[in-house]
Amino acid sequence: MMVPRILRQYRNELGHGLAATLKGNSHLRLAMRYHVGLCDRYGNDTEALGKMLRPSLLLFTVSQLGIDHMQGLPAAIGLELVHNFSLIHDDIQDRDEMRRGRPAVWRIWGVAQAINAGDLMYAAAVHEALRSGSPAAGAIVEAATAMIEGQGLDLDFEHRWVDTESYFNMIDKKTGALISCAFLAGGILAGADAEVVGLLTKVGHELGRAFQIRDDILGVWGDGKVTGKPQGSDIRRKKKALPAILAMQCGDDGQRRFLNHAYAQDEIKNGDVAQVVDLMSRLDVREMAEEMAQAHLEKAADHLDRLPFSEEGNEMMQELIAYLARREK
Amino acid sequence: MMVPRILRQYRNELGHGLAATLKGNSHLRLAMRYHVGLCDRYGNDTEALGKMLRPSLLLFTVSQLGIDHMQGLPAAIGLELVHNFSLIHDDIQDRDEMRRGRPAVWRIWGVAQAINAGDLMYAAAVHEALRSGSPAAGAIVEAATAMIEGQGLDLDFEHRWVDTESYFNMIDKKTGALISCAFLAGGILAGADAEVVGLLTKVGHELGRAFQIRDDILGVWGDGKVTGKPQGSDIRRKKKALPAILAMQCGDDGQRRFLNHAYAQDEIKNGDVAQVVDLMSRLDVREMAEEMAQAHLEKAADHLDRLPFSEEGNEMMQELIAYLARREK
Repeated sequence: MMVPRILRQYRNELGHGLAATLKGNSHLRLAMRYHVGLCDRYGNDTEALGKMLRPSLLLFTVSQLGIDHMQGLPAAIGLELVHNFSLIHDDIQDRDEMRRGRPAVWRIWGVAQAINAGDLMYAAAVHEALRSGSPAAGAIVEAATAMIEGQGLDLDFEHRWVDTESYFNMIDKKTGALISCAFLAGGILAGADAEVVGLLTKVGHELGRAFQIRDDILGVWGDGKVTGKPQGSDIRRKKKALPAILAMQCGDDGQRRFLNHAYAQDEIKNGDVAQVVDLMSRLDVREMAEEMAQAHLEKAADHLDRLPFSEEGNEMMQELIAYLARREK
Repeated sequence: MMVPRILRQYRNELGHGLAATLKGNSHLRLAMRYHVGLCDRYGNDTEALGKMLRPSLLLFTVSQLGIDHMQGLPAAIGLELVHNFSLIHDDIQDRDEMRRGRPAVWRIWGVAQAINAGDLMYAAAVHEALRSGSPAAGAIVEAATAMIEGQGLDLDFEHRWVDTESYFNMIDKKTGALISCAFLAGGILAGADAEVVGLLTKVGHELGRAFQIRDDILGVWGDGKVTGKPQGSDIRRKKKALPAILAMQCGDDGQRRFLNHAYAQDEIKNGDVAQVVDLMSRLDVREMAEEMAQAHLEKAADHLDRLPFSEEGNEMMQELIAYLARREK
């Protein structure tokens, strides 16, 4: 699948920005550069940067609102580093050994230094964000706060079943806050009025939901070689991702008993993981989740129509939306 | 020992400020309030706040420079939360089960949520700091960055011997940065000129060194019932704290061989810990460390003399310095 222009056009500048912010000689600085994909574990240059969705959206928004996109660079780097700090800590918490097809930071430098590497990345994120002024930095810190609270709920939910309302509240924080902040901070930096800022936030909110639902789908049915994570890992960790919640809602009494039993184990056995996936498929959970993601993408597109973006800008967003709906990693 | 006035006079306001910043219903918010000593693990009010040295120094500095101390409250709360976030993560990294005589956060809520609680506390810290404006917030974020880099070095040093120069570089970051920032941010908020800001930073630098050296002394000879940490824990964890470095420097060939052997173990055996303490005592390491701490306190007092503090303010700082030299926890 063709990578959309929004994710292509700022890659070089973002890569250089990350390299400049994370330069330095300590183990922690090396671990940070490794994590974002600038180098291998020995410090040799590699090209392993992620999608950089959030900073690309921020730069795109700034430029669509009539400001030189380079003015958004510190905030964009800050936002990307907030996202990446959370991934470093997330991998420790979930005991995920792989990230984007490479060993997670904690597997190489140990848990203690991985905690430090995440902390330092967050500090660097705020340092960068502050360079774009208090209002944008404040928005980024608020989004980071919500994201961490969402992480906390995500872990809480491993120990209990929740309804879709609690699920959406959790993902709005865990994922939606940062994606929404990409648009919001862009609007703040461009001096947009309250109506535009409101619309931007709504676009981000809907895209955030669609993005996380797609992640949840890939967490069950994704190709491990493409996602860089073992298949079925969300189930093994008893994550209350959307497929699990929908299966619990749609299953009959016997199926719900089986799910309760499977998810009551400390760690779900391989055989049970396969059976859970099988049950989800029989209940058409994947199709339901895809429809829900599609509905949020359509809502995002409706809000987009009312934004003062150029015709080309609108096309580029449509391209991105189509990509997010079908992405395999 | 009488608690000095600087640490007494702002306790109520700081306690209320912490409670206001950390309010909320989630597990993470409860864990944060528990950690700073506002409540027990069930949320019942307790009076277990720490010394709150850093925020007290910040408020004191602001008021000595002619500004209402309440104007420093957001920065003070931010600084105290940066310190406390690092303690939550520190206890995970060092596998320390106790903190201020109570179970560490990770012992109650688990490692994963303790990582989140620390992250959220850091986010809350920056949020508060930003309320006092970009310059002070920037100083606090820079201090946090240095502190985390110092944490990283501290962990690196567990695997090798270092000289006193590397030791001082590490503690200037790990401990000095935040204590220095208490004075620096106070000066920034009061609009002090460059000379005063320079002197404030030096006072903080010297106090920071004295403070950490005292901590290192208590880490070997402190009374576990008073410090709230098991005795000899720095040795057991192979920390290259000052007593270990001085013993390595002053020992003869046989003693150095013994130290090398003892610190080469994955975890130092109880019998060896006792022998290390014994060797340190025979080499007069404690006296040497106390003299070094005293020298830094005297340098701090020299810089203090040149600051535009009131006579009463100077007396209060002398009182604090005397306390820091003799504190048992």
